Amino acid sequence: MTTTETQARAEAALYADFAAASLVPLWTQIGNLMPATPAPAAVPHVWRWSDLYPLAARAGELIAVGRGGERRAISLANPGFGGQPYATPTLWAAIQYLGPREEAPEHRHSQNAFRFVIEGSGVWTVVDGDPVAMRRGDFLLTPGWAFHGHQNATDQPMAWLDGLDIPFVHLTDSAFFELGPDQLSARDTPDKSRSERLWGHPGLRPLSSVATSYPKSPLAAYRWEHTDAALRAQLELADEGYPGVVEPGHAAIRFSNPATGGDVLPTLRAEFHRLRPGATTVTRREVGSSVFQVFQGQGTAIVDGVPHELGPGDLVAVPSWSSLAFAAAGTGVDLFRFSDTPIFERLHQDRVEIGE
Amino acid sequence: MTTTETQARAEAALYADFAAASLVPLWTQIGNLMPATPAPAAVPHVWRWSDLYPLAARAGELIAVGRGGERRAISLANPGFGGQPYATPTLWAAIQYLGPREEAPEHRHSQNAFRFVIEGSGVWTVVDGDPVAMRRGDFLLTPGWAFHGHQNATDQPMAWLDGLDIPFVHLTDSAFFELGPDQLSARDTPDKSRSERLWGHPGLRPLSSVATSYPKSPLAAYRWEHTDAALRAQLELADEGYPGVVEPGHAAIRFSNPATGGDVLPTLRAEFHRLRPGATTVTRREVGSSVFQVFQGQGTAIVDGVPHELGPGDLVAVPSWSSLAFAAAGTGVDLFRFSDTPIFERLHQDRVEIGE
Amino acid sequence: MTTTETQARAEAALYADFAAASLVPLWTQIGNLMPATPAPAAVPHVWRWSDLYPLAARAGELIAVGRGGERRAISLANPGFGGQPYATPTLWAAIQYLGPREEAPEHRHSQNAFRFVIEGSGVWTVVDGDPVAMRRGDFLLTPGWAFHGHQNATDQPMAWLDGLDIPFVHLTDSAFFELGPDQLSARDTPDKSRSERLWGHPGLRPLSSVATSYPKSPLAAYRWEHTDAALRAQLELADEGYPGVVEPGHAAIRFSNPATGGDVLPTLRAEFHRLRPGATTVTRREVGSSVFQVFQGQGTAIVDGVPHELGPGDLVAVPSWSSLAFAAAGTGVDLFRFSDTPIFERLHQDRVEIGE
Amino acid sequence: MTTTETQARAEAALYADFAAASLVPLWTQIGNLMPATPAPAAVPHVWRWSDLYPLAARAGELIAVGRGGERRAISLANPGFGGQPYATPTLWAAIQYLGPREEAPEHRHSQNAFRFVIEGSGVWTVVDGDPVAMRRGDFLLTPGWAFHGHQNATDQPMAWLDGLDIPFVHLTDSAFFELGPDQLSARDTPDKSRSERLWGHPGLRPLSSVATSYPKSPLAAYRWEHTDAALRAQLELADEGYPGVVEPGHAAIRFSNPATGGDVLPTLRAEFHRLRPGATTVTRREVGSSVFQVFQGQGTAIVDGVPHELGPGDLVAVPSWSSLAFAAAGTGVDLFRFSDTPIFERLHQDRVEIGE
Repeated sequence: MTTTETQARAEAALYADFAAASLVPLWTQIGNLMPATPAPAAVPHVWRWSDLYPLAARAGELIAVGRGGERRAISLANPGFGGQPYATPTLWAAIQYLGPREEAPEHRHSQNAFRFVIEGSGVWTVVDGDPVAMRRGDFLLTPGWAFHGHQNATDQPMAWLDGLDIPFVHLTDSAFFELGPDQLSARDTPDKSRSERLWGHPGLRPLSSVATSYPKSPLAAYRWEHTDAALRAQLELADEGYPGVVEPGHAAIRFSNPATGGDVLPTLRAEFHRLRPGATTVTRREVGSSVFQVFQGQGTAIVDGVPHELGPGDLVAVPSWSSLAFAAAGTGVDLFRFSDTPIFERLHQDRVEIGE
Repeated sequence: MTTTETQARAEAALYADFAAASLVPLWTQIGNLMPATPAPAAVPHVWRWSDLYPLAARAGELIAVGRGGERRAISLANPGFGGQPYATPTLWAAIQYLGPREEAPEHRHSQNAFRFVIEGSGVWTVVDGDPVAMRRGDFLLTPGWAFHGHQNATDQPMAWLDGLDIPFVHLTDSAFFELGPDQLSARDTPDKSRSERLWGHPGLRPLSSVATSYPKSPLAAYRWEHTDAALRAQLELADEGYPGVVEPGHAAIRFSNPATGGDVLPTLRAEFHRLRPGATTVTRREVGSSVFQVFQGQGTAIVDGVPHELGPGDLVAVPSWSSLAFAAAGTGVDLFRFSDTPIFERLHQDRVEIGE
Repeated sequence: MTTTETQARAEAALYADFAAASLVPLWTQIGNLMPATPAPAAVPHVWRWSDLYPLAARAGELIAVGRGGERRAISLANPGFGGQPYATPTLWAAIQYLGPREEAPEHRHSQNAFRFVIEGSGVWTVVDGDPVAMRRGDFLLTPGWAFHGHQNATDQPMAWLDGLDIPFVHLTDSAFFELGPDQLSARDTPDKSRSERLWGHPGLRPLSSVATSYPKSPLAAYRWEHTDAALRAQLELADEGYPGVVEPGHAAIRFSNPATGGDVLPTLRAEFHRLRPGATTVTRREVGSSVFQVFQGQGTAIVDGVPHELGPGDLVAVPSWSSLAFAAAGTGVDLFRFSDTPIFERLHQDRVEIGE
Repeated sequence: MTTTETQARAEAALYADFAAASLVPLWTQIGNLMPATPAPAAVPHVWRWSDLYPLAARAGELIAVGRGGERRAISLANPGFGGQPYATPTLWAAIQYLGPREEAPEHRHSQNAFRFVIEGSGVWTVVDGDPVAMRRGDFLLTPGWAFHGHQNATDQPMAWLDGLDIPFVHLTDSAFFELGPDQLSARDTPDKSRSERLWGHPGLRPLSSVATSYPKSPLAAYRWEHTDAALRAQLELADEGYPGVVEPGHAAIRFSNPATGGDVLPTLRAEFHRLRPGATTVTRREVGSSVFQVFQGQGTAIVDGVPHELGPGDLVAVPSWSSLAFAAAGTGVDLFRFSDTPIFERLHQDRVEIGE
């Protein structure tokens, strides 16, 4: 036996003994585990509203909502994950559909959740007993461990976007779940939630709650009229020659926790962007992944150099460290975005690179 | 000479030598310097709007506003201070009066300032070039080191309350002051300041500014309609059986920095309280001093057990650790309050005692 | 065809269309994704030092250390993961082995790392050009993005425990890696690193660095003599009747960042525990996973009710939410622990349950 | 009567009416209240140890220590304050003298305190029942509201520097004081306090206390051997070509809270500076005032351009915004410094200007 053969046999024996002892050598794995820059399994991918909505509607006819399944939510499964229901390794995005007069029963979980309403109205999400109206353009919170159920109080179906940190919580084994009452804890349908009545006044906080800590935003609803007004004001200020926009033709707001000024949820960031007709954003890469949904207008997402045309309701998943730019069509484009950036900022793993 | 006499002479010689060496023994001072509980020189005191306004108006006729004097502001001088223009040892409160078409020139200072508008409208305060309309019930900020001037754009005079941390800054030798241009940097009179257009949307912050730190609130104006709506909502929630008020019949908000959720200014806290007809607050003592101004209605401030009847525009200074309760008359009462509490909270010198 | 058959066919068609559209229904996945309490794939598992060290030594003979493989590190592969080299879903633990006079070349990565020395001495780890001696009982840091290499300056081999957040960084796509010079940037072998000379004085920080932020500890080495003295002092204080221990017979310290008082690394917590002969800890569950290594003595880890006897060098992985207690044998036991708890605390996903 | 006379009379009447109504016009005060840069009443002043110690010793013979007077402390009275016992508007500095076998009874107060030992040993300060040995060069804490008394366990007298925030607390009306037992709560004389045994290990914190907040440092003593070693190390690192010193020939440490990395007390900063023979510091101005004491060696403090020669034990008060540089004599010089800087940093009123 040659030296090489001896060595090869000894190595094979060693690797077998490693395996038997539940050990793995780093030196055979390091390229995969420690790449020069993030090497996501997730891929950039587009889901079309014109595909999603009819499938959701079919589910509405075939699948009942109730205890056990809990929600008629259809999740975006990134093609890079081989069927796992994750939009990115940390983010869950789903279309939830509630038929006329349907209800989804109450439960709570450690996963943080929000809803963004692409169209329609008539559903109230009941968060810890507080009914919150859902209307087009609204951004609504269900912070981790708040009980919640939904009620469609109309004769029309309604569909919206759910965003959660389910994959992150699953991967880190931090999931808790508890059923609530089978019946909704409140069925009134007020225009404004109690949360908004307490916390929805700009720069004013209730004195009764100043001693409480709010790691998650106490404001349950961020209404479209405010978002729209804020974006409009930024563009008008730009026209008047004043600062406010992110870059020329690009207005944006971050949904924030009025009790801290920080992100609405500890693991999730949410933003709304408006690009004027023909405007283009700078190209950026960021540690962390995002999902964008076009709210209105038309535009192009250029992800890692590949253009994707997007219209109302279309969603695109952007993996970590993918380069990304948006360009608005002649219509301009309004974009809702959510991401896992707070995870990286809080753990000092964040990085951003601007430009091509 | 007796032993006692010898001792007395030796002590006298020692004390003289101390004085000559710029030294003072603690043991003769400790009772004054280190009392069992705060022993303010400031006294509880009431200033009547019916006294203040006519004096301010007389000043308006006699005293010009301009470079040098800078402002036609008449400050509350706590009777405990022997003529020093301090409402409390840390707080300055003044009535500022601007005649028809008058202007106050631009300057800036390290002292933090706000305005609260008890009545009238028509003045714009120009803060770092941004004209901010002043209207009845509004609370307006001039954070330390922001250039500011005022313009009365009407044919009526206007008077309001100025609050600053002048005494605190003076006592701690941290005052800086700089003149600005003699002419106002902006004379337009918009309904909404640019600051409000960027920051005045509940829970929304401009993405263009998320990388900036805001130790002082970036929101220049807190409008009466929002304050009033927030207070009304708290009382309505109480009627419906939900939390929100501070105590029965007592609604209150804290003006807060939308970028942090904290106090509007590092040294000053500002709040608005509404007591229903007949409602009474619990009695409290706090480290730190306050000034209250009645905005509307009638009520009684019970300070250290002594009742003071107050009507619209009346001001009361409450020294540190004085016991304080408010009782609303049949009209109910709306109260603006400011205090130096952030100083004590940030330095961990805060204490509160509830109850008689 | 019956109604049931029709429904079944329609459902099958719907699910096929979901799959074709890269969608997955929540209602079939919710039990797995959102369990009542964490349901880790990781299992409690023990690795014996008597297995690990000989395998590491064999690797020392067969496998060269150098560019490409970078490190002769053999990682603990939790049996629940089907061969993936992860001790838990977030934590990496490996035995690194460096032969006489060997060197491991310099590189840096966004993953945070530490070393814990179970036995031996004679290696210097060079962190950003600062050689740090490694000796028995020491805890040593290589914060993310610091260049580092190792040098064995003796004629004996040396092995130690490496801990990193590799799985977490991999799962969240936040890995960056860069090669350094092939030759070590420093080959001197001082007793004390420069980092310790600047930062290793209790309660004293260099004035030259107060303006810098330290999300990661600037102290490269936590020496055994300090750890041992701190634990001894706690037990002596207990004997004298004073507070200090965690519970009777159980002393413990947390390795902390002298610039913040917080965890040494943003994603990793490290602690040292000493149990007196016969002492037992309370049973606890925590969100987040841990790896323990016995440093000296003998004891039993009771994980989810199952006892595991452990001696010097033995390691045990404890999954999230497993119940855990330790009991010391007649020898007492010294335990090194590291965990991913900072991730959960910073993201407000932490939970602890005390008692059976 | 001329117009001018009429005007003058009207103004005089107005000012009289202001005074009667407890009002003061800003326009006559603004120059004094709002200077261009801080205009302290305090002046730069030097107190000589050769004056202080003999006076303290005379007080030791004439004045008993005990209940009522509480402490034989002789405070530096800045000549700018007309006899008030304040070193600066915020800082108190005093020489405390305890005769052989004397005791000072226990009390507590909201004022924060420290001791710095210029010479001698043999006194134990008992802080919340924990006896803390006082030895030459040590820096010792008595955080606000901790009970404390002193015991001289030797046959020699001992004198040291006391530093407190008495003036600041007095000016802001936040003083609380409480007598403790007349007898000391502990008379043992250990080499190390319990506080040091728990907290005096570099980078290690007791696990039993991680859930507690420490706005004030839990470490009662910062020993000279550590301070000296830290300063020596910085200068040696400089000789070896590495960073660490503040500027050439100038080593310095800040005493810090091991639980937060921040200042030892919320209102007081403490530092130790070492200048090599002939070394000179850059000239600086800062908002906030300081007191320096020479520990050993000789040097010159140049305050607002005026040189003051200083030797061991000599103290100098430096008002806010005075320019300051130090120059060491051929002996080099070791300087203890304390200041009120945390007040300004926490309230965002801090400013620094480097250079002439």
